[in-house]
Amino acid sequence: MTGLPTYEDVLEAARQIKGEAVRTPLLENDVLNAQLGGRVLIKPECLQRTGSFKFRGAYNRLSRLNEAERAKGVVAFSSGNHAQGVALAARLLGIPATIVMPSDAPAIKAEGVKRFGGTIVPYDRETESREEISARLVEEQGATLVPSYDDIYIMAGQGTVGLEVAEDLTARGLNPDQFVCCTGGGGLIGGSGLAIRQHFPRCELWAAEPEGFDDHKRSLEAGDWVANARKSGSIQDAIITPEPGRLTFQLNRKQLTGAVTASDDDTLRAIAFQWKQLKLVAEPGGSTAFASLFNGQIDTKDKTTVVVVTGGNVDPAIFRQALEFV
Amino acid sequence: MTGLPTYEDVLEAARQIKGEAVRTPLLENDVLNAQLGGRVLIKPECLQRTGSFKFRGAYNRLSRLNEAERAKGVVAFSSGNHAQGVALAARLLGIPATIVMPSDAPAIKAEGVKRFGGTIVPYDRETESREEISARLVEEQGATLVPSYDDIYIMAGQGTVGLEVAEDLTARGLNPDQFVCCTGGGGLIGGSGLAIRQHFPRCELWAAEPEGFDDHKRSLEAGDWVANARKSGSIQDAIITPEPGRLTFQLNRKQLTGAVTASDDDTLRAIAFQWKQLKLVAEPGGSTAFASLFNGQIDTKDKTTVVVVTGGNVDPAIFRQALEFV
Repeated sequence: MTGLPTYEDVLEAARQIKGEAVRTPLLENDVLNAQLGGRVLIKPECLQRTGSFKFRGAYNRLSRLNEAERAKGVVAFSSGNHAQGVALAARLLGIPATIVMPSDAPAIKAEGVKRFGGTIVPYDRETESREEISARLVEEQGATLVPSYDDIYIMAGQGTVGLEVAEDLTARGLNPDQFVCCTGGGGLIGGSGLAIRQHFPRCELWAAEPEGFDDHKRSLEAGDWVANARKSGSIQDAIITPEPGRLTFQLNRKQLTGAVTASDDDTLRAIAFQWKQLKLVAEPGGSTAFASLFNGQIDTKDKTTVVVVTGGNVDPAIFRQALEFV
Repeated sequence: MTGLPTYEDVLEAARQIKGEAVRTPLLENDVLNAQLGGRVLIKPECLQRTGSFKFRGAYNRLSRLNEAERAKGVVAFSSGNHAQGVALAARLLGIPATIVMPSDAPAIKAEGVKRFGGTIVPYDRETESREEISARLVEEQGATLVPSYDDIYIMAGQGTVGLEVAEDLTARGLNPDQFVCCTGGGGLIGGSGLAIRQHFPRCELWAAEPEGFDDHKRSLEAGDWVANARKSGSIQDAIITPEPGRLTFQLNRKQLTGAVTASDDDTLRAIAFQWKQLKLVAEPGGSTAFASLFNGQIDTKDKTTVVVVTGGNVDPAIFRQALEFV
């Protein structure tokens, strides 16, 4: 199904994933608030099943397939978090899953896919096209491709993050000034933005990207799709995408306030802070937004800021590096 | 106020701390369930304010003090988690707090107390009595002593952990077979046990203690208070107490099913698992119950088990050790 999702699609996705996805809490931390001089609400999607928000969209998408489609299986390409989300959703629904995954993906992510019964087809990020490999698999197997962001059900499913945030803020009588979210293809901030803007029309929406991979920032400035110069070379692997999604950016170009960036070291510092104060395990590409609250890109002073920690699938070696910043 | 708390006191405590304490979620993990062959529900109190459940009881207790009592301040003795809970509750309520803390307490805990404005008085675990030091401070300052477990409001406040678990289980239509909880003085399992048994009369209640500090286990067997031989020497510092509490054990001797133990290495392995699969940062003494699901002491096969992860205030050096087990 093509087309852009609406707020109604997000509500429908919430009903579809209820009881399957974890309703993650909205956390607040005294030390964080004091240090940033404002109120910060954290949505820890690292606590989601498979360790990232990706399960939401995957389950919403896969649960709409009919019997014939389910029997032929699904194919997805992903650096690892979408891969794990699809693998688990597929297992729960009894669907065979093949995942096209970069050979430099963190071991913890490949392991997760295998654990949930997915079959991995590795590729080289610099020399091979994951789109072509996936298309061939789809043709050979008659399988359904599950895009990681350019799909109405995927976007709506990820949007349940924003919906839960909006509901929890409302229950606490809070009116957010800004919503900051790690952004790769743009599905999460796109879907979530629908829900946030529905409830809080004046809330700013900020995409957070890795330094050197700021395709949303440059695309928003250009008013058109602008690709990144490089395709790899950051520990923020979860949100390295060639350019903004075809569908997602049609939504995001209208609703985003702008984009900010964080360096790899900024994200290691953010991981250390989350380890120490929030007791959360976050991955680099899940901490980009959090890092942007500390590196001067997002002004939190006297504001109410929502930040999404999108995932926690990090290899031990990277985590040890982050602990050096404690 | 002396006497033992009832279920009504736990309900009252829940009303008192509402909006102040975090309502932590009840998590479930696919990998954990598969590995243990049953359903395990995790109550992550490491996500509580100050990084442990202790804030609940502290806030419940301190918020009952009258104006005159508040002006004279509070005194608490603690290895660090109760200390931080009291320090933050005191700051929120505008009460001066003095904390008597062992000199070998983890640096992260002492730092937390100072950050929340508490004054630390250090003592030597082996040669000095924290009770005597605290009593002297109470006499000199006219301050109120805030016990870490032997107090009806403290027990009732910690019991809100069990109450939230019971509510969330009921909402999901689950009937737990067993509730396993890290146990030092016995306030948390005592208060929580009231709520769990009220909702699920047949649910077993298991105290989890550090190997070599199994005072509850031996006291339950003896039917009387039995002290530990040692007072220190475990990384599970959060739950090292001389013997079961005077008040708490009056409740726990009636309601506990029994006690289990975990070694320091068992808790390091549990920390590693939680890091990898749950994306939670737990401390050794907050992982004792979790560890008992893996070391053969608690049988989880085909059962529904609730486990409380009581805290996450761990020093980086210990955490690095745990990561070796990933």
